[in-house]
Amino acid sequence: MVSTLQERLVRSAAAVDSPVGQLADAQEWFRERAAADTSRVEVIPFEALRGWHFAADTHNLVHETGRFFTVEGLRVRMPGAPVEKWTQPILHQPEIGILGILVKDFDGVPHFLMQAKMEPGNHGGLQLSPTVQATRSNYTRVHRGRAVPYVEYFQRRDRHRVLADVRQSEQGSWFFRKRNRNMLVEVAADSDVEAHDDFRWLTLGQLHHLLAVEDLVNMDARSVLACLPRMTGGSDGTGGTGSPARERRGSVHRTADLLSWITGLRTDREVETERIPLRETDRWHRTDHRISHESGRYFSVMAVDVRAGGREVRSWTQPMIEPHGPGVAAFLLAHADGVPHVLVQARAEPGYTDVVELAPTVQCTPRNYAHLSGAAMPRFLSEVLQAPADRVRFDTVLSEEGGRFYHASNRYLVVETAMDIAPPEDPDFRWMALHQLLDLIGHSHYVNVEARTLIACLHSLLVK
Amino acid sequence: MVSTLQERLVRSAAAVDSPVGQLADAQEWFRERAAADTSRVEVIPFEALRGWHFAADTHNLVHETGRFFTVEGLRVRMPGAPVEKWTQPILHQPEIGILGILVKDFDGVPHFLMQAKMEPGNHGGLQLSPTVQATRSNYTRVHRGRAVPYVEYFQRRDRHRVLADVRQSEQGSWFFRKRNRNMLVEVAADSDVEAHDDFRWLTLGQLHHLLAVEDLVNMDARSVLACLPRMTGGSDGTGGTGSPARERRGSVHRTADLLSWITGLRTDREVETERIPLRETDRWHRTDHRISHESGRYFSVMAVDVRAGGREVRSWTQPMIEPHGPGVAAFLLAHADGVPHVLVQARAEPGYTDVVELAPTVQCTPRNYAHLSGAAMPRFLSEVLQAPADRVRFDTVLSEEGGRFYHASNRYLVVETAMDIAPPEDPDFRWMALHQLLDLIGHSHYVNVEARTLIACLHSLLVK
Repeated sequence: MVSTLQERLVRSAAAVDSPVGQLADAQEWFRERAAADTSRVEVIPFEALRGWHFAADTHNLVHETGRFFTVEGLRVRMPGAPVEKWTQPILHQPEIGILGILVKDFDGVPHFLMQAKMEPGNHGGLQLSPTVQATRSNYTRVHRGRAVPYVEYFQRRDRHRVLADVRQSEQGSWFFRKRNRNMLVEVAADSDVEAHDDFRWLTLGQLHHLLAVEDLVNMDARSVLACLPRMTGGSDGTGGTGSPARERRGSVHRTADLLSWITGLRTDREVETERIPLRETDRWHRTDHRISHESGRYFSVMAVDVRAGGREVRSWTQPMIEPHGPGVAAFLLAHADGVPHVLVQARAEPGYTDVVELAPTVQCTPRNYAHLSGAAMPRFLSEVLQAPADRVRFDTVLSEEGGRFYHASNRYLVVETAMDIAPPEDPDFRWMALHQLLDLIGHSHYVNVEARTLIACLHSLLVK
Repeated sequence: MVSTLQERLVRSAAAVDSPVGQLADAQEWFRERAAADTSRVEVIPFEALRGWHFAADTHNLVHETGRFFTVEGLRVRMPGAPVEKWTQPILHQPEIGILGILVKDFDGVPHFLMQAKMEPGNHGGLQLSPTVQATRSNYTRVHRGRAVPYVEYFQRRDRHRVLADVRQSEQGSWFFRKRNRNMLVEVAADSDVEAHDDFRWLTLGQLHHLLAVEDLVNMDARSVLACLPRMTGGSDGTGGTGSPARERRGSVHRTADLLSWITGLRTDREVETERIPLRETDRWHRTDHRISHESGRYFSVMAVDVRAGGREVRSWTQPMIEPHGPGVAAFLLAHADGVPHVLVQARAEPGYTDVVELAPTVQCTPRNYAHLSGAAMPRFLSEVLQAPADRVRFDTVLSEEGGRFYHASNRYLVVETAMDIAPPEDPDFRWMALHQLLDLIGHSHYVNVEARTLIACLHSLLVK
């Protein structure tokens, strides 16, 4: 009998060891790659950037080719937010890149081709990354760089089986409307795809183990893994179906009501943004090394010199964003009639494409709130940080995108709680069955990047 | 036993007569309302507009309050289109209004509260409209106008049952990123909702009959009806389910492949638009009465004086868009293993929010193509216009939004054909099972307004 995709994914999630290699082998392989990596990253003053300069008129930080990305200004008006008006620097990178993971069956168990990849902002240098992580300029080779290995599988999709292909947003506080295409593409089990030196086929079970290791699985990999078709529900009554998907099936709220809640917020909440010259940002000041807010909060724009030491030595300089203080991103988890639910927050960030996205229950940099009164503290933060150890189901520090953010990390938590901790109809929060949230990830701009990381981690908790 | 929503909707679609009234009664009611309507609409020169003027600097046509909408310019670059660069006038109306239909069970049969409403652009004055059709300024009463009847049911949704609530786009050639909130809200069967004079409860079966009458059911009503949860599929194997929704179930293409096709087009296709002052539109010229393209094609901006004669006389003036020549919008329909499919076109219009939307197989104003060579003629137009009568399943001229467009109409057709008329992997066309298309209408910006009209009409063909 032919297994369904769902059955095969469940098998992969259960496989901690595999015909391709044991978990210990994978860990050993990664340690070896990390030991062999001689990359170094150095913080430099802006004037030591090569190819980058501050434009005379706008003071935007731009590359001489006009490519890659720019650092510019954004003016934000968000009535009703704790701060209602501000300006800030922001990264503008309009191209939509590909984040792709190749999938292949070995002995009936799907494996995922992961890459050990250095990025300058990473804590620890190498992290486990998708098969392909390429900007449009990369993969169309306008920079005449090396070909991106395996990218052809994501460009000629008609020959392979697409499991997911959806544009998803990234950090809306640091990027202006940045989206990447998150793709999972399965090649035939008998196809001959070789894993190059820096690549390795891993099961979902192995990936779930590695997700619990600090700073190991990178943001792009987590984002793509969150887009996997869901492994539970469907024919057992907990899954939604087309029209009935708008009905309630083992969920606290009907999907129609959740979609209506989102539509209401996107219709009524005002978020006005205007791209402005970087020179017009108020209260942000530039020194030789950094552009920072006068309060010392939020983040700085800074610059690095990178020497990447893999099989081939490459070196470059680039600007990056360095957040001030680590963040916290957490889902409160509760069960209703045995169906797992998470408390999602409808969150507006200025760089989002469509007003609000669904975010973790708590998502903040606690340090940015230290100067505000208790009432302004993020809701549910104390519940998360003060939860007894036996209710903490996941707790790992993971890095954000190392190609643009310097030592950016969040402590990701999943904390089990009781459903009555939140009122059922809070304006900004809803309990959502995990299967409802997973169905929305199939469409763009519903689930933010921090929530996608937590969903990748929740897969590891809920599918044994 | 309690019926499911699906079962009740099927019952409503089958009910041509109802305890509330026969179809003939509904027709008689509408004739009476139309006879009682003494409204008149007169085309006037721009200088006779009251409260509207051309701004000194931009020549944009604006209202003195800054409200309602503006007529401004748009510069478009669309590489690969038959015309790659142009400028045009466009309506800018950033507020998201409510188009809402109230639903209530009578004897277990859902009825829809429809309104006989005059709008200045309508052929024939009155058309059958949603319960509520209100701009945000209307329903928040910033104009201090009359309260919008029934709007409270759509604002206090927590007390009622939401069947659909989704922002949908409107004409992307005439509007810049215009969206309205399409809502269906069901009140309890025992609730006491009175139908005022201009309102009447109708079954889906009655609405389906009336859809086949020229210029009777207005665009907003068709758009909302298209958002109904689907009435077929689900447990019978033709319905998608959450994760399995990405699998193939009685459809030619897996849903994952269709979503990937859309993602690919939205990633790769370039559509650049820039709002510009109306004075900077090239080849558009203003006379006392009209702003028109020098070729005589496309549309004109013009002005009307309206005296609305209902229970209360109101009069106003306003600019409108008057298209040159009627349009054609048609779906080719074919069955695969008994499952109805339509040939959808991925269509870019400059005013869309997200690059392309799913459109009818054919959507054009034939007259605009008369000057181009045969190769530039819209694909499948001849198949539609030359189809033998026994293959034409629907063929009715219907009006577009009468509040903004003057005598704008399309001939809407559904033509049955064989699936091999189109190659399976054409870049711009895909056969999509109707249930797949209906599932996408639950989310914003997938299905364009012309396709939504045809879907409302297809409901009437496919559900008996």
